[in-house]
Amino acid sequence: MAKDVHPPRGMRDFLPLEKSHRDQILTQIRETYLSHGFQEIETPALEDLARLTSGQGGDNEKLAFRVMKRGAELESALFASGDSADGLADLGLRYDLTVPLTRYYATNRAKLPTVFKALQTGPVWRAERPQKGRYRQFVQCDIDIIGESSELAEIELLNASLDALAAIGLADATIRVNHRVLLANLLDGLGVAEADRGQAMIIIDKLDKIFAEGVIAELGEKFGAKVAEAASGWLSTLEGVLDAPAELAAIFNAIEARHGKGKLRFDPTLVRGMGYYTGPIFEIEHPGSGSSIGGGGRYDGMVGRWLGQDAPAVGISIGFERAVDLVDGAEGSDPKALVLVLNSNSPVCVAAALNAQAEAIAAGYRVRLEQRPKKLGNLLESMQQQGFGSWAQIGEGDPFNIKDIKLLLS
Amino acid sequence: MAKDVHPPRGMRDFLPLEKSHRDQILTQIRETYLSHGFQEIETPALEDLARLTSGQGGDNEKLAFRVMKRGAELESALFASGDSADGLADLGLRYDLTVPLTRYYATNRAKLPTVFKALQTGPVWRAERPQKGRYRQFVQCDIDIIGESSELAEIELLNASLDALAAIGLADATIRVNHRVLLANLLDGLGVAEADRGQAMIIIDKLDKIFAEGVIAELGEKFGAKVAEAASGWLSTLEGVLDAPAELAAIFNAIEARHGKGKLRFDPTLVRGMGYYTGPIFEIEHPGSGSSIGGGGRYDGMVGRWLGQDAPAVGISIGFERAVDLVDGAEGSDPKALVLVLNSNSPVCVAAALNAQAEAIAAGYRVRLEQRPKKLGNLLESMQQQGFGSWAQIGEGDPFNIKDIKLLLS
Repeated sequence: MAKDVHPPRGMRDFLPLEKSHRDQILTQIRETYLSHGFQEIETPALEDLARLTSGQGGDNEKLAFRVMKRGAELESALFASGDSADGLADLGLRYDLTVPLTRYYATNRAKLPTVFKALQTGPVWRAERPQKGRYRQFVQCDIDIIGESSELAEIELLNASLDALAAIGLADATIRVNHRVLLANLLDGLGVAEADRGQAMIIIDKLDKIFAEGVIAELGEKFGAKVAEAASGWLSTLEGVLDAPAELAAIFNAIEARHGKGKLRFDPTLVRGMGYYTGPIFEIEHPGSGSSIGGGGRYDGMVGRWLGQDAPAVGISIGFERAVDLVDGAEGSDPKALVLVLNSNSPVCVAAALNAQAEAIAAGYRVRLEQRPKKLGNLLESMQQQGFGSWAQIGEGDPFNIKDIKLLLS
Repeated sequence: MAKDVHPPRGMRDFLPLEKSHRDQILTQIRETYLSHGFQEIETPALEDLARLTSGQGGDNEKLAFRVMKRGAELESALFASGDSADGLADLGLRYDLTVPLTRYYATNRAKLPTVFKALQTGPVWRAERPQKGRYRQFVQCDIDIIGESSELAEIELLNASLDALAAIGLADATIRVNHRVLLANLLDGLGVAEADRGQAMIIIDKLDKIFAEGVIAELGEKFGAKVAEAASGWLSTLEGVLDAPAELAAIFNAIEARHGKGKLRFDPTLVRGMGYYTGPIFEIEHPGSGSSIGGGGRYDGMVGRWLGQDAPAVGISIGFERAVDLVDGAEGSDPKALVLVLNSNSPVCVAAALNAQAEAIAAGYRVRLEQRPKKLGNLLESMQQQGFGSWAQIGEGDPFNIKDIKLLLS
């Protein structure tokens, strides 16, 4: 009897057509970013656990899969730890690509350009409770610019990302933009003390879930009636289209000049969770998705932690899994995918098949060999479901004729 | 001061030019295999630890990185385990792509073609002592055919692999071939008992390290003087070119008809370590490398373990890291990689630069924007080292002229 076999909980196998669909989308995103002069890098899947849990990763740090020490090191850690888990692990699987990027930059900066424009895509792992659309292994697509403090960096990231989204068929995507300094000024204006800013931002971040009433109520609970009243006044001014403030004008102007109006939208209520943002922040939206499909922002303080000297940095990430769900699958079969049916297993037929295959590959086909089964129709129907659109047979002295599988099956 | 930052021991960062070189080679291998009708799949990096250590992976099982249980499960395992490490881990990082493939086939076979021709590439992890050329994370490139018992499967694997090696510039690669049944018959003939075959194969496998004298001596020690004498007689007959025996004739004929003579070489001493091989076995060699650059063979018994019913299977793997070392790097700079120098940060100049960039991308360039620095020569020299071969400037009302960086620097 077959044993019950699955991939680990929350992780996925990809069937050939899914894999090909995902690969196509990832390739289009990567090629767009490369065409914009971003340089692709790769870091290991594992990082030192101490680095992954040093405060840089926010809440995600708790979700790092821990990899056990090995051999003598494990034995001595076990001996020392009694029944606590501390010290049994020394490595962890990365939960994002930003922490590895900042480590990479500190390790390799002598060999990198002064302004480093990085592209990194790859799987990350989070030990979350699996839910619909939330996986324990998933792909991220990040671009970051380190070493450029002017808005040219933000402009390049947003410009390249809009092009990448258009390349995969998501030309309707728009990006909400805010600025952490504006948020800070706003909170000052509402009467929130500097020390309470973080907490107030967390409340404002819930606007799309608890609406204006909820935000006003929670601000009131935490910071008193005066703040609530000021917030109520502020929120009531937010109806209608808002022009971008001076802090964001250069970014808005450049993107409008290249992509037309409406791609960027100023949203003074946009917060984004991560504590490390210091300047402009972005969130990518698409009418087909209820939640954001990516985001990012400027994080000028973070790279310096490994580097020992400050380096301005800004990044944006396309949520690959959400983007894949929005892009229509490459349904149907491909006429350039050919099933070549061998009429016998004789040496002459096999040799002829290998030559015909090479010829068709040179003409741009993908060519799968198959021995002729009793029921040719069943084979070709199953091949059509796998994306093969054409077939030919070889071995009877027939001319090498490529035919449409549809015609045979209809 | 900068903290000391490295990737974890035995794992690597890839700089942009290395990454691009590796990606190019991997893409050529993948595209060749896809053109031969192999279907690409993806499995998670993690598998259940019980599956990774069930005897299918040979010595590699000991090298699996173990991933710790989390939360309450970890606490109760710690409580139960005292100071042993048993039971603290439930997942492991894959150490090869074959164990995941056989699990994948058992999980998904209802959605796969009867004859499944799989392509899988990706990183694997082994907790080995790092050495020169041996890493703890490295890439494998596997193709396998499950469900085909005739030699057509071996022929397809070898044909596609020779094409893939040629595609990356390793047309000089050759493949040594043997058959496990021939090895078994040979050992019978030498007087080795069936129960001792495995041990005798391990000794013969060392032929290239300890030579004929060593093999004869070790066989004598283990199995007595008679076996040693018979082995000595056998080894002395192996000088000169050997014709492939009848068991391998169909494979040799088909590959010779397509690739000419000399691509395959019968080697009656080839063993390959893995215990699970049941038929033809292969090892890929290249004159530029002292060790093999890949290998594989038929493993008809293995897939059945998860499936509950037997399925014939054969696979071959290109050792990606060794292949990369043999392929010349894409040295020098690319004339289609363009540095576009902005003469100012003014809105007009930025807008003009984004438009010029879009125009050049449409013409097939990769275009990197740069603000004009004080020393243009230094910038362009550094960009040339990063692979950029052309430059242009924008913003002075100049025509958009693309120039060779070499000319400026010479």
